Amino acid sequence: MMVTMHVCVTCLAGKDRETVPRAGRRLYDALAEAQRRQDTPPGFRIVEAECLSNCNRGCSVALSGPGRWSYVYGDLNLAAVDDLLAGASRYATTEDGLVPWRERPTIFRKGVIARIPPSPKPV
Amino acid sequence: MMVTMHVCVTCLAGKDRETVPRAGRRLYDALAEAQRRQDTPPGFRIVEAECLSNCNRGCSVALSGPGRWSYVYGDLNLAAVDDLLAGASRYATTEDGLVPWRERPTIFRKGVIARIPPSPKPV
Repeated sequence: MMVTMHVCVTCLAGKDRETVPRAGRRLYDALAEAQRRQDTPPGFRIVEAECLSNCNRGCSVALSGPGRWSYVYGDLNLAAVDDLLAGASRYATTEDGLVPWRERPTIFRKGVIARIPPSPKPV
Repeated sequence: MMVTMHVCVTCLAGKDRETVPRAGRRLYDALAEAQRRQDTPPGFRIVEAECLSNCNRGCSVALSGPGRWSYVYGDLNLAAVDDLLAGASRYATTEDGLVPWRERPTIFRKGVIARIPPSPKPV
């Protein structure tokens, strides 16, 4: 099982370009710090990304993994850190990335931007 | 090279649920028909998908493939068919899914909803 949470570290979340650190960087740092403090599934990684093209509704993260549905979530801030890790852990326990609706954190239900099916098997 | 264009066939594009066929289904059918008439790259497939969770800006398609950046595009309709196939063909010729900005069709520049990096290589 390999699951990645990409965090857009370039996100300004509406602030001006001189803001340092950027909102996306702060979210990434907080997620990485929280991951060090708690158990997350083996094979789950948090990785920096440059722009997930969801600038109007940042901050943004994406969950993906081989053979799984991928999800992009937006409208995120530092208050979302614990729910993001809990939601990612639940995602990691599935075979295909599909978590039953009632088991998704509210930030996932309300903040989903898009999802992409896994690539079909080669024929 | 294996590249998939998932087309959300459940998209209503703002119409009511009784509309048959749905706007997403009509877009899929038009893309499949256009693909039969023209050359598209080997390994490029158009596949039906159920809801890409971009309902506010449908119709929607997603481009993805192993080891590539994935993209979700919205605000699409039947007039976009030729540009979608041209853009997908250009995407398929890249190694990593990143097409230079100036070579992207306008519908890709204006209609991008989100993108997701390829999964990192296992360590």
